[in-house]
Amino acid sequence: MGLLDYFISSRSKGTANVAKERLQILVAHDRAARDRPSYLPQLQEEILAVIRKYVDVDLSSVSVNYEQEDSHEVLELNIILPDTLQNQA
Amino acid sequence: MGLLDYFISSRSKGTANVAKERLQILVAHDRAARDRPSYLPQLQEEILAVIRKYVDVDLSSVSVNYEQEDSHEVLELNIILPDTLQNQA
Repeated sequence: MGLLDYFISSRSKGTANVAKERLQILVAHDRAARDRPSYLPQLQEEILAVIRKYVDVDLSSVSVNYEQEDSHEVLELNIILPDTLQNQA
Repeated sequence: MGLLDYFISSRSKGTANVAKERLQILVAHDRAARDRPSYLPQLQEEILAVIRKYVDVDLSSVSVNYEQEDSHEVLELNIILPDTLQNQA
């Protein structure tokens, strides 16, 4: 909830006059079992595949951040969408 | 980047001693074309389907927030994962 509020307020301030389609995906995982391998890297591929069903994503327009700490990990995808987007269904 | 930093610091403070598996997904879309229908609701279903390939998600453990403003929209999924998770591959 706090995260969402923060996000919305930061959006409102900075980007109102930038007519750029942008998609940001954040996946955060609090892990109780630290010994298991992370599935976020695979999840990233699959989420991108899902998004590409809806919008034309140039993979060079995708930037990925992945941070792993002791008991949590965060995957962040930033996607700049092409300007031709509005011609799509 | 600012969002990621905020997220990581808020995680670190509050949840270090809670051994609960939790997955949070945030999808934010800055839209240039406001007249097109949003695809985030469908995206939500598909992302959940992808996640369920990796972990056993009880749909009653999923809470969804969706906020739509003039030129941006945010979809937030909060998933409490079952404790039996560590028995999975």
